[in-house]
Amino acid sequence: MRPFELTLGEAADAVANGELSPVELTRSVLERIEAVEERLGSYVAVTGEAARRSAALAEREIAAGRYRGPLHGIPFGLKDLIDVAGLPTTASSRVREGHVAQADSAVTRSLFDAGAVLLGKTHTHEFAYGLTTPQTHNAWDQGRVAGGSSGGSAVAVAAGAATFALGTDTGGSIRVPAALNGVVGLKPTYGLIPRDGVTSLSWSLDHVGPLTRTVRDAALVLSALAGHDAENPAGLGAARPDHPLPRERDLKGRDLKGLRIGVPANYYFDRIGPEVETAVRHAIAQMSDLGAELVEVEIPMVRYIQAIQWGLMVPEATAYHERALRSVPERYGPDVRVLLEAGELLSAGDYLRAQRARTLMRREWGRLFEQVDVIAAPTVPMTAAEAGQDTVEWPDGTTESVSDAYVRLCAPANITGVPALTLPVGRDHAGLPIGMQLMGPPMGEALVLRAGHAYESVRSDPGEVAVVTA
Amino acid sequence: MRPFELTLGEAADAVANGELSPVELTRSVLERIEAVEERLGSYVAVTGEAARRSAALAEREIAAGRYRGPLHGIPFGLKDLIDVAGLPTTASSRVREGHVAQADSAVTRSLFDAGAVLLGKTHTHEFAYGLTTPQTHNAWDQGRVAGGSSGGSAVAVAAGAATFALGTDTGGSIRVPAALNGVVGLKPTYGLIPRDGVTSLSWSLDHVGPLTRTVRDAALVLSALAGHDAENPAGLGAARPDHPLPRERDLKGRDLKGLRIGVPANYYFDRIGPEVETAVRHAIAQMSDLGAELVEVEIPMVRYIQAIQWGLMVPEATAYHERALRSVPERYGPDVRVLLEAGELLSAGDYLRAQRARTLMRREWGRLFEQVDVIAAPTVPMTAAEAGQDTVEWPDGTTESVSDAYVRLCAPANITGVPALTLPVGRDHAGLPIGMQLMGPPMGEALVLRAGHAYESVRSDPGEVAVVTA
Repeated sequence: MRPFELTLGEAADAVANGELSPVELTRSVLERIEAVEERLGSYVAVTGEAARRSAALAEREIAAGRYRGPLHGIPFGLKDLIDVAGLPTTASSRVREGHVAQADSAVTRSLFDAGAVLLGKTHTHEFAYGLTTPQTHNAWDQGRVAGGSSGGSAVAVAAGAATFALGTDTGGSIRVPAALNGVVGLKPTYGLIPRDGVTSLSWSLDHVGPLTRTVRDAALVLSALAGHDAENPAGLGAARPDHPLPRERDLKGRDLKGLRIGVPANYYFDRIGPEVETAVRHAIAQMSDLGAELVEVEIPMVRYIQAIQWGLMVPEATAYHERALRSVPERYGPDVRVLLEAGELLSAGDYLRAQRARTLMRREWGRLFEQVDVIAAPTVPMTAAEAGQDTVEWPDGTTESVSDAYVRLCAPANITGVPALTLPVGRDHAGLPIGMQLMGPPMGEALVLRAGHAYESVRSDPGEVAVVTA
Repeated sequence: MRPFELTLGEAADAVANGELSPVELTRSVLERIEAVEERLGSYVAVTGEAARRSAALAEREIAAGRYRGPLHGIPFGLKDLIDVAGLPTTASSRVREGHVAQADSAVTRSLFDAGAVLLGKTHTHEFAYGLTTPQTHNAWDQGRVAGGSSGGSAVAVAAGAATFALGTDTGGSIRVPAALNGVVGLKPTYGLIPRDGVTSLSWSLDHVGPLTRTVRDAALVLSALAGHDAENPAGLGAARPDHPLPRERDLKGRDLKGLRIGVPANYYFDRIGPEVETAVRHAIAQMSDLGAELVEVEIPMVRYIQAIQWGLMVPEATAYHERALRSVPERYGPDVRVLLEAGELLSAGDYLRAQRARTLMRREWGRLFEQVDVIAAPTVPMTAAEAGQDTVEWPDGTTESVSDAYVRLCAPANITGVPALTLPVGRDHAGLPIGMQLMGPPMGEALVLRAGHAYESVRSDPGEVAVVTA
């Protein structure tokens, strides 16, 4: 196995045992980028020189006995909404021409403190305001969309062009591209991961989180982001001591005895592709075989989900872009500009209605998690769309825009702030990955990671790297 | 001294020592209501029969050795925005015709659990959306406004027509009428007192709090509202263990050694009446004589205060009234209706700008309270206006609406959520009361109550009852 094919967990173990040097690992991943980047377009900028230097530094530190932990010497990609001091944060937009970040974001600092090695900045749909990331191509079929908005991060991880990456998720922007590229993505509990130094799309819905090749890898990155004291992550953790962050030992077993998994009777399995439904229901059955108790649950307030998501996101995004929209509107892509301008037409009443409905929905979901520990559902209703495809036709005869389809099943976790993990559960007839979403109560990261890891451990191909043929 | 003239603290001590019976006290206050209510118009409805019954019950409980604490057997008035099961909550509005509350509000329950005796519901400016309370007359001069929106509660307490009362405060609605009627009013830290069962004006600015005749009385009511475990009031308290609620012993001394009192160099002493300035500065000097250290402070972001207050309040109020405004607009008073209709014209961007500016202002005020423990300032720039007076002329030649003048110095504590206490510091040439405002850090109730109590203890006339002549 070539080093770039190793999962984060495997690479970390090899580095810790002295079997793999950070320099060798970083070189292998940089060579992989060389080999595939032209076909994938996952990076805005690759900082190879700096990466080699920090890998060499990590190697010296480890040799000197100053091992910092599982991320030490591991190469990663950062969605280009996340500030790194001295580098531009382009947000994949011409609006940011000439921008240079003055300081590291909080999450950048955490990863540097953990000894991780920055490979470069990955593409986002412009300002995270879209679900396709047009500059980037799907890792499994370059004629298909990468998904968005963290498309560059998902594709890089899927292709072995990064051992892990960070993304942001406002309406599915971590989970959608992770699902479409067959990798693991975690949107943590709202507020758990600090967002300072991360360009905002919609602050009441924005989350930062990891994209990785396995569930164990996601847990390793989460611990680094939420503070090494896993029992007491910044602020929020203290509020829910009953839900400590997972430590590795929590992820050992395959046994799911005592775990109540909610299976939605409505919403999540409506208007989805048959191959997606089959794969997700099969994965749920496998978790039941591992000892989990399946409980049918009714998803509340489903008529309001789309109105709340867009009713919060559109005006908050417009407020954030207010100045640039006045001064340099022509620098935005047409799809983003029309959304930002639409936000100017919404009334305070529209926004406040959405906020009040969100409050009720959060309460209802709280009740849901009194009945079950985890809810299992599809992440997205369909696999990767063709590049340029605008709409999808459903068996029931209805038509939906591709963006609406990709947001539809992700939005509830953004609105309510509950943690949501996506992981691969198979492929469709065209070989395109299918994702399953596991949601838990606020600060219930340990529950969704435990369930996801147990399922993953019975799969044949966890952490496989996409084959990218020239 | 007749029982209705007793402060809450004096009455509580007398009841506890068996020198005063709740029945006797309640009878005395009900007779006082009889005598003065025609001239004051402070009550929407007096529930005398029920009051006599609960006083008799309190008397039996105490006789049987089941004394509940300082509020047991004490008669009080409730602003008519606060639900009592089986009674209408009129909000002093025709919109509420035929309304009957199904359950007690959280604060009603707390006071009933403490054994307090409900006298009736007091007048509010319609739906708390105004600063005058036109149905009610000032306790000291019936040709003057009561102030608002908790005008009925302030006037009843000032006139001995209630031993204490509750009000609500969104832009000064407890502090303004308290100051104009020479009583004590406390707007606690945002979120400290539960608001369920209280009609909302603007949920991000609304607060419930006590109106009393002394600072000690305010502390007694606060403890009952915030939960008897004063160390750990519902939710918020736990967040700030460094600021426990005050217990009686905290209020004993007159000594203010070690207390840093901030005296604003800008904003609070601009455009105020000379008699108000003299009285407040004299009170501040007296606190310095008691050992407090005076520190000049600069109030931040003052250019934004009015825009933030109205930018939050107007759309939130309109959102709350949306349905009634469509169905029965003609039932609103013209002043309230025009404000509610104005709210429909604001954009989501206007509202979000106000929210974002509020976030910055909260941070700036946090820094202010690293320099000082308490900020002392006038509560309102002028004493009670003539009934029907719309504007005020300032020495600098500017003109201001009476409402804007009364909100101006109160709004910062609503926007930032910090606790703010008003207490009487003298009278103007016409014998009208003047109020001083003491503000503290979030959950700093103990600090402002301690400072206010020490000042009050050197005054000649604490807790005096207004003379109401037929």
